[in-house]
Amino acid sequence: MSSQPFIVKPGDNITLSNVEQDCKPERIPDYTGTFQKKGETKKPLKKLNKRLLKLQELLYAESKHALLIILQGMDTCGKDGTIRKVMAGINVQGCEVVNFKVPSSDEIARDFLWRAHKAVPKKGMIGIFNRSHYEDVLVVRVHDLVDESVWKKRYQQINDFEKMLVENGTVVLKFFLHISKDEQKERLESRINDPTKHWKITEADIRERSYWDDYMQAYESVLQKCTTQWAPWYIIPANRKWYRNIVITERIVETLEKLDMNYPKPNSDVSTLYVD
Amino acid sequence: MSSQPFIVKPGDNITLSNVEQDCKPERIPDYTGTFQKKGETKKPLKKLNKRLLKLQELLYAESKHALLIILQGMDTCGKDGTIRKVMAGINVQGCEVVNFKVPSSDEIARDFLWRAHKAVPKKGMIGIFNRSHYEDVLVVRVHDLVDESVWKKRYQQINDFEKMLVENGTVVLKFFLHISKDEQKERLESRINDPTKHWKITEADIRERSYWDDYMQAYESVLQKCTTQWAPWYIIPANRKWYRNIVITERIVETLEKLDMNYPKPNSDVSTLYVD
Repeated sequence: MSSQPFIVKPGDNITLSNVEQDCKPERIPDYTGTFQKKGETKKPLKKLNKRLLKLQELLYAESKHALLIILQGMDTCGKDGTIRKVMAGINVQGCEVVNFKVPSSDEIARDFLWRAHKAVPKKGMIGIFNRSHYEDVLVVRVHDLVDESVWKKRYQQINDFEKMLVENGTVVLKFFLHISKDEQKERLESRINDPTKHWKITEADIRERSYWDDYMQAYESVLQKCTTQWAPWYIIPANRKWYRNIVITERIVETLEKLDMNYPKPNSDVSTLYVD
Repeated sequence: MSSQPFIVKPGDNITLSNVEQDCKPERIPDYTGTFQKKGETKKPLKKLNKRLLKLQELLYAESKHALLIILQGMDTCGKDGTIRKVMAGINVQGCEVVNFKVPSSDEIARDFLWRAHKAVPKKGMIGIFNRSHYEDVLVVRVHDLVDESVWKKRYQQINDFEKMLVENGTVVLKFFLHISKDEQKERLESRINDPTKHWKITEADIRERSYWDDYMQAYESVLQKCTTQWAPWYIIPANRKWYRNIVITERIVETLEKLDMNYPKPNSDVSTLYVD
């Protein structure tokens, strides 16, 4: 499958709230492509996981590039589950997950990109941002945490920042995990109804849901203004977890394959070493 | 198998260089316990990996404890391989690997524990130190990088530091991967003879080998002076990689089982939430 159906191209018109009427089928959260049900993706996913491990080793050995994966989406959209399933079998030493929560006082005292920049992966590594600097044009915008004149400038600032990363050897992949409002309702209810899942939920999560439309608007801006040639956004249909996982893993594998990496050249100085 | 054969007890006399003559069988790098060959540990290791994933989820959900795993040993002893195999299938989001290399100028300008302290895992997380603050009484001692009067005080400083960590909710596991000098020779030679492995080796690695006896002496001090009730050292027979992996995974699983962790209690306030 080519990555084209999920990529957002500069100039694309994105309407997240109203997808059924005016969008391509792959923009609908329920979309599952050529797959019908869960079991069908199990084998191909396992194969992709194995391929990803090989590519990660190569990335690490070559250490020319870093891979930064940015995951965004509404509460319960599956960011944690994606990390668990897509990265299953990866070498933990080559992968770093960074969670962006409410900024600390130290972080809030700097520009919004400061903590993101501090957390970018080293060459050879896969870095995953679970939420990211995009929160500064999402939650910040929805809840008026800074003036509009401030957050409006951030789209361009983000594009410039990501361009600099890419030009210096970091590959940037950005996934919006797209679930429907109904699917979120089901997932929240299942957490409420299962006492062992209560630790995963707070009243604040329910409160955030009432801002759904505002968030969709904020995400539309992000997807339109911050999809670039160098760091495109992908909209991932995410109502079906198993489909979400295979699509994202495919994108990552595909991206790493394109880097055309090689193991470092044999070193003739090493060949002559003598071990006593 | 109980952890007792591998643990170093306070007061134990450790002689690493001369193990065959005067030590327990499990102190010999070639030791493989009740196992005869590689294939035999495959199934039990897979089972342990699965159990470890469950325990990690629980550690994360409960977030009362952190687990800090310290890996030390001579070059080629298998620290990287241990991380790959023991942590196979773990959720990368709950695990953080920190590599301690030559200290930066910012690090050298502080006390030797500063960078270790900065890197300790959060509650809920498994942190792995690939090398650690112990290098400050190992390489530093062998190469006279600071005065003896300075490094001699560090054993107690390390014990106090680790005690503080443990008293504040971090479980500390310390593994010395014990290979023989002959085994290191084989492993270095196999890297020299395989051009695709040249990137893993430098002339400096060979040079370090000439300090083998000094390192063994330095390790003996570490193991004797820094094995404590709260943070014991384990000596892991590591000539056979497959045996090393299963022994370490067993220790980790065993340690987490003992924490007697529970999923956070159901929250009655959550049960009454209504999703619109």
